[in-house]
Amino acid sequence: MTLPQVPFDDRGLAYGDGVFETVLLRHGEPVLWPYHVARLVRGCQCLGIPTPCQAAIEATWQGKATAPLEVLKLIVTRGSGGRGYALPDPPAPRLLSQRTVFAPMVERWKNGVTVRICCLRLGHQPALAGIKHLNRLENVMARQEWRDAMIAEGLLADQQGQLVEATSMNVFWQQRGQVFTPPLDKCGVAGTLRRALIDQGAVSEASLSLELLPRMERVWVANSVQGVWPVHTLLSEDNVCLQRFQGDRHDKFQTLAHRLLGYAPTPMQ
Amino acid sequence: MTLPQVPFDDRGLAYGDGVFETVLLRHGEPVLWPYHVARLVRGCQCLGIPTPCQAAIEATWQGKATAPLEVLKLIVTRGSGGRGYALPDPPAPRLLSQRTVFAPMVERWKNGVTVRICCLRLGHQPALAGIKHLNRLENVMARQEWRDAMIAEGLLADQQGQLVEATSMNVFWQQRGQVFTPPLDKCGVAGTLRRALIDQGAVSEASLSLELLPRMERVWVANSVQGVWPVHTLLSEDNVCLQRFQGDRHDKFQTLAHRLLGYAPTPMQ
Repeated sequence: MTLPQVPFDDRGLAYGDGVFETVLLRHGEPVLWPYHVARLVRGCQCLGIPTPCQAAIEATWQGKATAPLEVLKLIVTRGSGGRGYALPDPPAPRLLSQRTVFAPMVERWKNGVTVRICCLRLGHQPALAGIKHLNRLENVMARQEWRDAMIAEGLLADQQGQLVEATSMNVFWQQRGQVFTPPLDKCGVAGTLRRALIDQGAVSEASLSLELLPRMERVWVANSVQGVWPVHTLLSEDNVCLQRFQGDRHDKFQTLAHRLLGYAPTPMQ
Repeated sequence: MTLPQVPFDDRGLAYGDGVFETVLLRHGEPVLWPYHVARLVRGCQCLGIPTPCQAAIEATWQGKATAPLEVLKLIVTRGSGGRGYALPDPPAPRLLSQRTVFAPMVERWKNGVTVRICCLRLGHQPALAGIKHLNRLENVMARQEWRDAMIAEGLLADQQGQLVEATSMNVFWQQRGQVFTPPLDKCGVAGTLRRALIDQGAVSEASLSLELLPRMERVWVANSVQGVWPVHTLLSEDNVCLQRFQGDRHDKFQTLAHRLLGYAPTPMQ
């Protein structure tokens, strides 16, 4: 299958001027689809890109499933433009998509993962916070900090040391039996699974300084494609162990989140 | 002429994972070329992208000139990658380029321009500051703040109110006869003309709070393609006039900068 292409003058390439979504398809049907569409629309509105019509967005997944699980990636760019930042007039956004076969890392659901704290600190930019735009160099830089395959994710804080997210997942912690996740009004990507869990009343937003994270009862990283990975080991920026977290045989948070994604509950070992 | 293309999985498109240069060609010869190459190399090193070989970089401008002045745009991306932020292994960066005929806005050299202060404040990200990477949504958002063609540029400050740059140019001011430009170690793009002027001893780095800008003796915005535009009118975020600056018939700063670019001196009217 040939990949869609964009020309040199596409503003998605030139400036990261666009948004994207990564959607789990189960038997060809998109999971948490209203949340993905809502974020895509909000992102386009935030950037001032005309939203592609609903029919075009829906058409991206309405082909025949080639596997029980796939990932659908959508990109919306502002389209081609001239030299310079001034907007193309009239605008002609591009909507591109690709489907690939997917298999979640089931062993991480069961066994949990090691995560480390990244050295890179996210900059504040309230004008772009929360949306899944194409300017992701901070995430790329953070992900370059380690190559050890034993480390599943990196946690990102802002320049004030407040926890924000993981490089490609949101982060959650339990304190006094309640589950929390950081507000994302200054930086970070507001995941669709995160949003759905907040809407269900299962998670609340709260700020947390990095240094308090080891004292939390439990920590998870999660997104709408991979599901929920319980964190069993938290490493510092220097890869020193800061804390080991105990898992339960019945992880209620994971079970609830996986129900939203259609993943079967997986008792921890 | 068909434009070069990149596929859907190119990381320049997916994450803005790359750098670019915009180079003035005079009779087919690149102007300030060593500065452009140096910034391109520094940008690649900063992002951990293997630098394209010198021969490939040089080949981008070694065609026949189609006009006395052209603009050469180069893009280097990290190349194609899988889903996720982890680096492609082995890396296969892409180098793309395009030449277009160019004519500078000579009347702006002579008559000066109106600039406004943008509402958007740049976030700090020291890990990416100074390089000309493809994550330019802040510039795009700032450029969207006005459509009035009488406003030539927008000035950008950081979240502490310190002046940084213009949306696609660097900014310079004169105080007690000396010319200054902001340091760019926390945000902003370090222009090649700016660098050359600093290397010549014509400009020094200094911090300046936005509110002090109207009190400066003169203000200019400049880049290596358009040259130097003296600012005659400074507008606030609300488009209220904060200051009118007087021009000289002989603008020494512009003359010096234009000599570096091969533009003839243009006495102001």
